[in-house]
Amino acid sequence: MKNLSVVGIGSTAFGQHKTKSITELAKQAAKEAILDAGIDKTQIGALYVGNFISGPLNGQEILGGILADSLGLGAIPATKVEGACASGGIAFRHACLSVAAGLTDYAIAIGVEKMTHANTVEVTEALNFAMDKDTDGQSGHTFPGLYGLAWRLHAKKYGITRSQVSAVVRKNKAAGLKNPLAQMGATLSEDDILTSRLISEPLRLFDCCPVTDGASAVIITSTKNAKYAKSPVTVLATVQTSGNPRIPNGDNPISFEASVIACHEALQMAGITREDVSLVELHDCFSIAEILDSEDLGFIKPGHAAAWAAEGRTNINGDLPINPSGGLISKGHPVGATGIGQIYEVCKQLRGTHPNQVQNAKVGLTHNLGGCGVTCSLSILANPDV
Amino acid sequence: MKNLSVVGIGSTAFGQHKTKSITELAKQAAKEAILDAGIDKTQIGALYVGNFISGPLNGQEILGGILADSLGLGAIPATKVEGACASGGIAFRHACLSVAAGLTDYAIAIGVEKMTHANTVEVTEALNFAMDKDTDGQSGHTFPGLYGLAWRLHAKKYGITRSQVSAVVRKNKAAGLKNPLAQMGATLSEDDILTSRLISEPLRLFDCCPVTDGASAVIITSTKNAKYAKSPVTVLATVQTSGNPRIPNGDNPISFEASVIACHEALQMAGITREDVSLVELHDCFSIAEILDSEDLGFIKPGHAAAWAAEGRTNINGDLPINPSGGLISKGHPVGATGIGQIYEVCKQLRGTHPNQVQNAKVGLTHNLGGCGVTCSLSILANPDV
Repeated sequence: MKNLSVVGIGSTAFGQHKTKSITELAKQAAKEAILDAGIDKTQIGALYVGNFISGPLNGQEILGGILADSLGLGAIPATKVEGACASGGIAFRHACLSVAAGLTDYAIAIGVEKMTHANTVEVTEALNFAMDKDTDGQSGHTFPGLYGLAWRLHAKKYGITRSQVSAVVRKNKAAGLKNPLAQMGATLSEDDILTSRLISEPLRLFDCCPVTDGASAVIITSTKNAKYAKSPVTVLATVQTSGNPRIPNGDNPISFEASVIACHEALQMAGITREDVSLVELHDCFSIAEILDSEDLGFIKPGHAAAWAAEGRTNINGDLPINPSGGLISKGHPVGATGIGQIYEVCKQLRGTHPNQVQNAKVGLTHNLGGCGVTCSLSILANPDV
Repeated sequence: MKNLSVVGIGSTAFGQHKTKSITELAKQAAKEAILDAGIDKTQIGALYVGNFISGPLNGQEILGGILADSLGLGAIPATKVEGACASGGIAFRHACLSVAAGLTDYAIAIGVEKMTHANTVEVTEALNFAMDKDTDGQSGHTFPGLYGLAWRLHAKKYGITRSQVSAVVRKNKAAGLKNPLAQMGATLSEDDILTSRLISEPLRLFDCCPVTDGASAVIITSTKNAKYAKSPVTVLATVQTSGNPRIPNGDNPISFEASVIACHEALQMAGITREDVSLVELHDCFSIAEILDSEDLGFIKPGHAAAWAAEGRTNINGDLPINPSGGLISKGHPVGATGIGQIYEVCKQLRGTHPNQVQNAKVGLTHNLGGCGVTCSLSILANPDV
């Protein structure tokens, strides 16, 4: 996998796009990525689009074929891939595999979702399609409900405090303020968070990522071709794992095995250690998720991530910057786009052009998690000097 | 691509499965394929599931992760792929690519759809998600409507008759009678067809594939590993193309370019000519589709396919047997399962164990088409002696 590079990136702002269709959003991001790569679109030989629920929410499937046609890419294979919230990362991995397998010199991975036109019930119902109906379908659970429970279990085990978790929210909301793509950056006090609407005890409104429209896209090629690109980023690893699709109920319901295995596999593939990683963009669909995920990924010992946040160790200038983009909480979570959006943000960091630039950023890791840990997509990218 | 083989096949009956969930159907087919392959399930390193509309019709996404978990396959990458009615064929191609790229020794491709619980309006609306909403969304068109129009244009150009098209229906319905997996085999007279309910002039009820539940699965490995299998089938080629996602309106609205290009590419990849092909399973979602498709694939000259059917030249013992399984018209069309179902049928033929066995079957071609020709998946399989 070491012979691949990202040579073009593009993204719409994440937020509310009232006048654009889901196809138009995806096209906008894709065109920007193609322009950024400086290639002719006819050089692209494979298209993958990560999307979760365009059928239920937009009445639109066949996004692969529609995008290949409307971008003028010809008769190339064009495929929608789905793995709940990890759909974008899965699209990235498949575009990488197409190039690695020699099927094409250039591949495009697009992620897209359009959700804000639907009402809360419609969105909640559609998001629940990421649960296993046969086992949990009648449980009445929702993802905010489950993450609220996870928080309580984690707090019971490790004694983390509301104030510590709020540090995650404040960090990510503050980062979002400087990221022009972010939907909901803000300067928040602890009190702002504490007095925001209760969603699922102890989760409050500001602990949750918003409902979002958006699209991101990246162009992948061989590192050999990438020498012609203006600002290539090396793909050191991209992996995809499966985990428990049901409501977590095992020995350790506050850990997602798909994340643990994915990080292990990716570090092995990249041939690096966690110490080599300059920054992480991870799947903070809720504040508590950032804590669970950074422990699952092995960057912080179990029970310590909340304290790290409170001590500023995961800030942009901290020991390990986590979500310097603002993360899902601040950027928003257009489900299928999120994984590609993370790649976009890390590429900006490794190019040294991010609005929240991590100093001396050399290696970035993206972590994109679906459902209750049913699917994980994890990639490691590097500055070409590494 | 010549170093791959199908070593295990499984399928539910196509029809109405009132008591089984979509996941259970897929599991049943997958378990049968694993058993047929004679491998341990832990040897499988990648899972692809072709599915079109499990979100809208079943409220269930993440089929990849659910199946990996419930089949006990561990943390392997498991991905749903979607390309409307070609989703199954796309899953097959991706499972093949996983093995060809050396990512795993064994991969499983599953196709599944569950539709019969929904009412006609729900099904029609969901099937229309395979149109481009931005361009045709407000047209009020349906796929039966479009194929009815295509028939009229084809008849105007070439003068084909109702009686000739009925020969396709009679052939496929008769084949279905002997195929235990088929939903609606029948012995039909021309009059039965002529007096069946009008759907979209000139399409009548028996010209249309039924609404269907079902799942099929196949196991792919390297031809080197396949020597341990009891009845391997060689994969000579598998390709995927994109075409027009809109209502056909170009110079030739009765031809699907994605099919034309896919067949050309696949024959090149396989290194064979059309004369080497013993039988074809193609995408006869409507009777007229079998005629359009067999002309697009280049097996019959434009304007002659209807006459071939009427003359019995596409019968099981004809010049070129087309849809000896009964095809979509007779087997049914559980959308995401259809492409894998075609592979299943061709493998049975090449193993010499099909209930409608084509004599001396050596090479079989499957053609799986999505939407109005937006996506085509086409594969060529061969008896290992070839």
